[in-house]
Amino acid sequence: MNKLGLFISRRSYGTAATFRAADTIIKKTQHGNRKPDSDKLVFGANYSDHMLTIKHTTASGWEKPVIEPLKPLEIHPGAKVLHYATEIFEGLKAYRGNDGKIRLFRPELNMNRMLTSAERSVLPTFDGQELLECIKKLVHLDADWVPKSTSSTLYIRPTLIGTEPTLGVAAPNESLLFVVTGPVGPYFPTGFKPISLLADNFHCRAFPGGVGAYKAGSNYGPTIYVNKLANAQGCQQVLWLYGEKKLVTEVGTMNVFMYLKNKKGDNELITPPLNGLILPGVTRQSVLDLARTWTDLTVSEREITMDELMEAHQENRLMEMFGAGTACIVCPVERIVYNGKTHNLATMNNGAPLTVRFHDTLVDIQFGRKPSTWTVEVA
Amino acid sequence: MNKLGLFISRRSYGTAATFRAADTIIKKTQHGNRKPDSDKLVFGANYSDHMLTIKHTTASGWEKPVIEPLKPLEIHPGAKVLHYATEIFEGLKAYRGNDGKIRLFRPELNMNRMLTSAERSVLPTFDGQELLECIKKLVHLDADWVPKSTSSTLYIRPTLIGTEPTLGVAAPNESLLFVVTGPVGPYFPTGFKPISLLADNFHCRAFPGGVGAYKAGSNYGPTIYVNKLANAQGCQQVLWLYGEKKLVTEVGTMNVFMYLKNKKGDNELITPPLNGLILPGVTRQSVLDLARTWTDLTVSEREITMDELMEAHQENRLMEMFGAGTACIVCPVERIVYNGKTHNLATMNNGAPLTVRFHDTLVDIQFGRKPSTWTVEVA
Repeated sequence: MNKLGLFISRRSYGTAATFRAADTIIKKTQHGNRKPDSDKLVFGANYSDHMLTIKHTTASGWEKPVIEPLKPLEIHPGAKVLHYATEIFEGLKAYRGNDGKIRLFRPELNMNRMLTSAERSVLPTFDGQELLECIKKLVHLDADWVPKSTSSTLYIRPTLIGTEPTLGVAAPNESLLFVVTGPVGPYFPTGFKPISLLADNFHCRAFPGGVGAYKAGSNYGPTIYVNKLANAQGCQQVLWLYGEKKLVTEVGTMNVFMYLKNKKGDNELITPPLNGLILPGVTRQSVLDLARTWTDLTVSEREITMDELMEAHQENRLMEMFGAGTACIVCPVERIVYNGKTHNLATMNNGAPLTVRFHDTLVDIQFGRKPSTWTVEVA
Repeated sequence: MNKLGLFISRRSYGTAATFRAADTIIKKTQHGNRKPDSDKLVFGANYSDHMLTIKHTTASGWEKPVIEPLKPLEIHPGAKVLHYATEIFEGLKAYRGNDGKIRLFRPELNMNRMLTSAERSVLPTFDGQELLECIKKLVHLDADWVPKSTSSTLYIRPTLIGTEPTLGVAAPNESLLFVVTGPVGPYFPTGFKPISLLADNFHCRAFPGGVGAYKAGSNYGPTIYVNKLANAQGCQQVLWLYGEKKLVTEVGTMNVFMYLKNKKGDNELITPPLNGLILPGVTRQSVLDLARTWTDLTVSEREITMDELMEAHQENRLMEMFGAGTACIVCPVERIVYNGKTHNLATMNNGAPLTVRFHDTLVDIQFGRKPSTWTVEVA
């Protein structure tokens, strides 16, 4: 473990220390569900016909993966997941291109992050490539659920929970890995719709020595109340700050980027560094990777305080601000409420050209319109 | 909401804004389970025959409480509780006295805390007195499961989870309140067994603007890994510190007390104040309430740093240190590993007389040997 508490190494794999995709048992549904209208897709409300489940016990290791019709899980009321948030997850998407092929976007980053989250949560680990192959089988079986659309997609939700039915606060001896999928609409069906943020001075998403850098359920439940406070102030999401310096950390459930002309006169794209407070987002990484191939801007992973951000805004040096995540890809920020004052940002003044550039480049890659090593075809 | 983000007010109750214990539907089991040997009780591993469940939807409010045989819950794999830690819980016990009566210990404190946790987690609230009456019905029905013992008890676990099967990070429109119970053995069957603590300089249990003051699942999952680090250093539990000053906050899943001769020469009993980082424990409150009726010590709810604690230890002024919680009542601390050094505390040198005094006084009340307004009889 390094000084930030992030894991570097992986456990070695012994017998049953991983499941194998080749062992997957497939039980097809007899009657598929009706697919929702693609123009009425609410995020995370529709599920495809099948799910993947893989059981684990400390005594016997992983069982064979099972793909079967979606159904309720039978969970003992004493299962650790219901009491101690023994749960981690991932989120990625399958995209159907004009060529009819279904692609995943950098899924190996999700698999790696899931293993990191599992280790921090003392949940069982596995071979990420094997899970990826299982997910491909699941998506392939439910290929009809991947929208025939240039903007709608199939959302994929791998989840790992502790199911041991005992109330001790301890690592579970029984766990369940499952994957559900479902069609989701475009985040911005009618073009960018910028959001407003409450920069909350009191509530905090993550802290040093906590789990902010992992995709653990614990990071999400506590934010729901704070988002309600933002809504009550006319804002859609929370701008999460940290510490006395009011470091800018994240936006809602997204990473955050700020594009400004810095005091040296450079066009600088800034996102907070992976210092333990920040989720290592796949879209975040992709925005950084793309921007570093572009020569007209400086890319910085560095801390930025509210003071610096507000100063840049007041001096008309803040050009664009946006969130980045799998759901929206990029999401422009047009307004920040901070210390009771409303700050209207310049983001949309010229149509947010940098944000649009990231959006279009990423979408072209995801839907296979632009060839890239970042996509993986589902057989 | 006050400046600490703690809730003061309660929602008003409209139609179906609470369930009623009088409406409880009871379905008795046809064949009760065999009870475990009372000398082989592992905490949280055995469950009584029945459970209480109460469903809630935003549209229709609370349904009627149901007491039925313990069985797995059917939970949709997309339920918010499995992804976003939409879960809170409580822990209390039923005690069988020599007079055969079954008593609860200050259960109204648990009900109040559960409502506070629910509000912070944007889960539905209810009339705490009604839940208490439901719990009494459950314990009464499973009265045979309350150990006939002067030390074993029936552990009671009320839990509230978000069951709505949608993946948006939002308050759930469907929730489930459930209560399971099970017999637990004495924490110290053969007299006090003091514990050793790793004072971790990096990991953190709670932080300002977080949910450390609420009994939310999110506070527990992230601690399991840190406890493993403590075990690896030969310690049983973690001494949770906060911030640059290394404030002493909690011990494992317990509140913490330190009894020292302070620089004024007073015998001072110190526990950290309810500043948002500390769970407002029922045992903590009871230790404070008792101590304030005793005239031979000074009681302080105040911040204490590791520096102050270690200085008192090195100057032989630290007399006793103990954790306090429902499981163990009080639990003496004999050793702290801090910055790589082992510190053997004086706690057990004279048999921990203050810790013993709290233990014996509380046990006498809980088992009805000493009359008290703190106990509530189960009809």
